[in-house]
Amino acid sequence: MKTLQIKATTHEYEVVLGEGIRHRIPEMLEKDYQSILIITDDQVSDYYLEDVRQSFTGGQHVHTAVVPSGEASKSMECYEQLLDACTTHQLDRRSLIIALGGGMIGDLAGFTASTYLRGIDYIQVPTTILAHDSSVGGKVAINHPRGKNLIGSFFNPQKVVYDLETIATLSRKEIRSGYGEVIKHAFLSDVNWLESLLDVSLDTLTSRQLEEDLYRGIQVKASIVEKDEKEADIRQYLNLGHTLAHAIESELGYGRVTHGEAVALGLLYALKLSSRKSDKDLRVNDYVNWLRKNEYPLDLLRGLDAEKLVDRMKWDKKTIGRQINFVLLDGVGHPYVQAMDDSLLLNELKCVIEEVGNG
Amino acid sequence: MKTLQIKATTHEYEVVLGEGIRHRIPEMLEKDYQSILIITDDQVSDYYLEDVRQSFTGGQHVHTAVVPSGEASKSMECYEQLLDACTTHQLDRRSLIIALGGGMIGDLAGFTASTYLRGIDYIQVPTTILAHDSSVGGKVAINHPRGKNLIGSFFNPQKVVYDLETIATLSRKEIRSGYGEVIKHAFLSDVNWLESLLDVSLDTLTSRQLEEDLYRGIQVKASIVEKDEKEADIRQYLNLGHTLAHAIESELGYGRVTHGEAVALGLLYALKLSSRKSDKDLRVNDYVNWLRKNEYPLDLLRGLDAEKLVDRMKWDKKTIGRQINFVLLDGVGHPYVQAMDDSLLLNELKCVIEEVGNG
Ligand SMILES: NC(=O)c1ccc[n+]([C@@H]2O[C@H](COP(=O)([O-])OP(=O)(O)OC[C@H]3O[C@@H](n4cnc5c(N)ncnc54)[C@H](O)[C@@H]3O)[C@@H](O)[C@H]2O)c1
Ligand SMILES: NC(=O)c1ccc[n+]([C@@H]2O[C@H](COP(=O)([O-])OP(=O)(O)OC[C@H]3O[C@@H](n4cnc5c(N)ncnc54)[C@H](O)[C@@H]3O)[C@@H](O)[C@H]2O)c1
Ligand SMILES: [Zn+2]
Ligand SMILES: [Zn+2]
Repeated sequence: MKTLQIKATTHEYEVVLGEGIRHRIPEMLEKDYQSILIITDDQVSDYYLEDVRQSFTGGQHVHTAVVPSGEASKSMECYEQLLDACTTHQLDRRSLIIALGGGMIGDLAGFTASTYLRGIDYIQVPTTILAHDSSVGGKVAINHPRGKNLIGSFFNPQKVVYDLETIATLSRKEIRSGYGEVIKHAFLSDVNWLESLLDVSLDTLTSRQLEEDLYRGIQVKASIVEKDEKEADIRQYLNLGHTLAHAIESELGYGRVTHGEAVALGLLYALKLSSRKSDKDLRVNDYVNWLRKNEYPLDLLRGLDAEKLVDRMKWDKKTIGRQINFVLLDGVGHPYVQAMDDSLLLNELKCVIEEVGNG
Repeated sequence: MKTLQIKATTHEYEVVLGEGIRHRIPEMLEKDYQSILIITDDQVSDYYLEDVRQSFTGGQHVHTAVVPSGEASKSMECYEQLLDACTTHQLDRRSLIIALGGGMIGDLAGFTASTYLRGIDYIQVPTTILAHDSSVGGKVAINHPRGKNLIGSFFNPQKVVYDLETIATLSRKEIRSGYGEVIKHAFLSDVNWLESLLDVSLDTLTSRQLEEDLYRGIQVKASIVEKDEKEADIRQYLNLGHTLAHAIESELGYGRVTHGEAVALGLLYALKLSSRKSDKDLRVNDYVNWLRKNEYPLDLLRGLDAEKLVDRMKWDKKTIGRQINFVLLDGVGHPYVQAMDDSLLLNELKCVIEEVGNG
């Protein structure tokens, strides 16, 4: 078992990583919650809902709410259903919400917790690799038809209980997705870690390695959000690869590509743009090989229209005064933000699509 | 012009009270907002929307969104419409929302601002007396069919611009409503102020007196929320009179009684309960006379069922572990919180209904 302490502006909370700890949630809680609502999706529920529910043996009222699995549930409609569940079960300010699932559930349940009675306690119980990213940092949100995560808040969990055993049932696609954010954290922080990652094939991942990667990923994220929780400044670095990723996701429609896969493609684009501005070695070729080896969907790029993507990037919430701000790297571990010219963006995107989409 | 500085946990902000200052909003803003969305209701818009809109003469994009006047607009439906307006007008993180109206608009527009892009700047431009209370302290919310303000957050405005001229168009009923919260602030703080208020007839209110009362009311509220923004502790005092008020409001259905009128009745009940526990003089008789003189709707009590009201009080979000916590006074200016017995609550409520509802 490994732990990490996160210093948020509202309170400090702990991230616990370990095997089988979904069975031991009550002993990890600091308060004695009498009413609990476990929110999960209908895929995760089959595997883990009973384990978590049955861990509460102290006579607490344990309720459950299950939404359909998939990004489409991060919607106003499901949000309203969950608020209804909170009132039906009469959760009060001393109740707890448990977000059991991947980033979709973490964001949806976290946003519900943040606005029910102006905020009640919740914990994150991530079950995907990607959720090493989403469960830490306090960003919670739902989607709006006009864009991802347009409705949300900053609201930190009381705890993050990361049971590594749950990763065993994750599909190859979702492992790939999660490692999109893991490798982003490596690019943002440490060339040695990056190089060891670039050697890895996701098919032969050991649980030791997984634990190490998740731990390091969370460390990188935590160290940034601790300095800038509200994204006034350096938290933007975490958006490395995301400007294009968001555009791809909304262009293709949610479901056609996972978030982490889109990030992995966006990352490549950010590396290419970065290379135009700096001579530092960003391991671009090794990264392309890694993407291919692990079967990231490079071919998706082929079907995409560069102009439409640039238009979508302009209407991204990180856009300020209609200029596109990009996170670039001046070498591995050295992110910075730069306002970018439309035509440069377009040309480089065309090159990437040409080069990789057809390879 | 009078100003007050409020120290919130996230930032410090200023309350400005003065005549005609709705025409001078841009010069009071600390940032140079390029996109602005004024949110108001269809009654306030007739009087003041153009004034505020036209005060922006610097070429800013000024958009407006108007919802129907009345508590029913503090709904999920209007909230969604406003979020749509934010995306339609492409508000970004450097945009501003202006909440122009009473407490309904302040709560609704504030909640929208708090969750759009995880929170963008907003200012309160209160136009009712009641909003001296709602515009300060950072509580924003919408209603749920199962109860008032069940969905919301804590989110402080960047400024409160209180133009006292706008009070001139307020109906007698709304003046009465606003003074329900003003007199609550007097009961919570200062017997001299209370006594001077009890002498006042709301029909002959001078603008000097109004300014003084609003200023003092805001001071009381500010001094409490500065010590306990998140209602962990003493902020509960501000709920004096509110436990019964909320029950009356939901029993009658929104619209039949104003919030402040309900508070004025709830206050009477809280005073009566307080008198059971302490000998201090709470000016109960003077208060009843003041209510009658100013035509507070005491007769509404007659139609109400004490048992149903107590049931509703139990299902109030301040209820913890199903016990009813009440704010009581041990003398004017000395609030405290006490868990109350159902039967005592019921008996006293029957007495009040009997005594005042028929008088
Ligand atoms: N809040 C943040 O800071 C942040 C950061 C990154 C991503 N996100 C959000 O996270 C979401 C993506 O997260 P995700 O990739 O975890 O998606 P997800 O939660 O939709 O999970 C992906 C799929 O895996 C299934 N699943 C989850 N755990 C499983 C398990 N242990 N075994 C088998 N199947 C399992 C789910 O049912 C789903 O079908 C997006 O909505 C994204 O916007 C948020
Ligand atoms: N957030 C808080 O801390 C807090 C505190 C107290 C009350 N509230 C909320 O405030 C709301 C009640 O506020 P309210 O009483 O101001 O209600 P309101 O905003 O509904 O206004 C009352 C009526 O007066 C009209 N009006 C407003 N200003 C006017 C003007 N200058 N001239 C003519 N007509 C005008 C409105 O159109 C409406 O019909 C409730 O929803 C309550 O829950 C919130
Ligand atoms: Zn991401
Ligand atoms: Zn009130």
